[in-house]
Amino acid sequence: QQVPFSTQRYSEETMLKRSKDFYMLMNQRRTVRFFSTEPVPLEVIDNVIHTAGTAPSGAHTEPWVFVVVSDADLKHQVRLIIEEEEELNYRQRMGDKWVQDLSKLKTNWIKDYLDDAPYLILVFKQTYGILSNNKKKTHYYNEISVSISCGILLAALQNVGLVTVTSTPLNCGPRLRLLLKRPVNEKLLMLLPVGYPAPDATVPDLARKPLDRIVVHL
Amino acid sequence: QQVPFSTQRYSEETMLKRSKDFYMLMNQRRTVRFFSTEPVPLEVIDNVIHTAGTAPSGAHTEPWVFVVVSDADLKHQVRLIIEEEEELNYRQRMGDKWVQDLSKLKTNWIKDYLDDAPYLILVFKQTYGILSNNKKKTHYYNEISVSISCGILLAALQNVGLVTVTSTPLNCGPRLRLLLKRPVNEKLLMLLPVGYPAPDATVPDLARKPLDRIVVHL
Ligand SMILES: Cc1cc2nc3c(=O)[nH]c(=O)nc-3n(C[C@H](O)[C@H](O)[C@H](O)COP(=O)(O)O)c2cc1C
Ligand SMILES: Cc1cc2nc3c(=O)[nH]c(=O)nc-3n(C[C@H](O)[C@H](O)[C@H](O)COP(=O)(O)O)c2cc1C
Repeated sequence: QQVPFSTQRYSEETMLKRSKDFYMLMNQRRTVRFFSTEPVPLEVIDNVIHTAGTAPSGAHTEPWVFVVVSDADLKHQVRLIIEEEEELNYRQRMGDKWVQDLSKLKTNWIKDYLDDAPYLILVFKQTYGILSNNKKKTHYYNEISVSISCGILLAALQNVGLVTVTSTPLNCGPRLRLLLKRPVNEKLLMLLPVGYPAPDATVPDLARKPLDRIVVHL
Repeated sequence: QQVPFSTQRYSEETMLKRSKDFYMLMNQRRTVRFFSTEPVPLEVIDNVIHTAGTAPSGAHTEPWVFVVVSDADLKHQVRLIIEEEEELNYRQRMGDKWVQDLSKLKTNWIKDYLDDAPYLILVFKQTYGILSNNKKKTHYYNEISVSISCGILLAALQNVGLVTVTSTPLNCGPRLRLLLKRPVNEKLLMLLPVGYPAPDATVPDLARKPLDRIVVHL
């Protein structure tokens, strides 16, 4: 069934201003790997996740689940799993090229932020759904849909002044799924520690591509 | 090299308000398949794409290219390719289950909006980069990174009152890449028609999952 649609219409001048302001806000986003341990209201996190849940999804399957871990012990258990697997990634699994490509970011397998950040959001994609008759429901493009939803989540975090590390913990999915007691149709896609930056936080001195290197007009 | 980082800090009250307001704005987003032919300033589109380019990316590879098609002939050629492939998808390739899963959206292979919308944004992922010495540069997680960037692009469009159809044109990538003369390391990920909604636009009467079905607190 179709229903009428209407949306807020802005003047061209207002559109220009809004588009510039939003660009400036989002362009201040950085991946921050040093967190303050200060608490953040859970309601803000819930609103941010609610916002992520407005994303489009293939055939409206909404194939996302956001597990918010604030319990200190559980955060630490997540950290132990990730550091164990990441050390193997760095030392054995991934080869010199990967380690070298990451060297300019100065990342390694020690991740204090997994204890420090007041929240860890573990984002699962439902690779299929389960219908009331117990049959499987195909989730078309579930990884793309959940990634889009994470893009909206990042925008929502930036909008409230919180920071995160977008990360796809390599080889950690199965153990974290069991730790968090998620069903087999859910696969870990991303882990986002969320909080305020540490007062002395630093970031790699990176530049972004200028507009003319990412857009083509035809 | 690391540089100091700081970001805007809001009071808890302000964070709550900003997170709610942003949720309400984003929750009004819908996929709209009926477009007005009215022109939209190109500078707004450029700002929206610039915003998408602030997304995080695996090892800072920024593996996205946004091709903006406004030429009426070229838009029509895009339409012909998509309709031809989509008709095959519906009639032959995809099977009854796919067609049935989409039936509640009332979509089919006729896509007037590809002519009507003033812009078609074709989003390419660079599956690898090319270094100055002509060697290939690995683009880790390029599809996830570009999808996140599209999520931010959707937020930026919603923020200025423009609408789109998030779509992943099935089996059309190779022909559209040739039409738009993009290099072999770029693969089509999404096609986003962009413009104002038609005055009589309708949308499927869909509901979103409530927050408690997408979040788990631990
Ligand atoms: C990865 C992806 C692919 C999609 N493909 C199509 C498509 O080919 N055609 C279409 O009309 N809508 C497509 N959609 C839009 C969804 O049908 C739409 O997001 C969903 O029905 C929810 O509606 P909403 O966006 O209005 O909330 C796609 C969405 C996503 C995320
Ligand atoms: C899919 C994806 C995976 C990432 N994985 C990691 C990661 O495992 N560890 C990390 O520290 N940063 C990770 N990042 C963050 C990138 O390194 C970062 O976005 C990039 O260096 C650009 O920096 P910026 O986000 O500050 O603009 C990832 C980003 C994306 C999009």
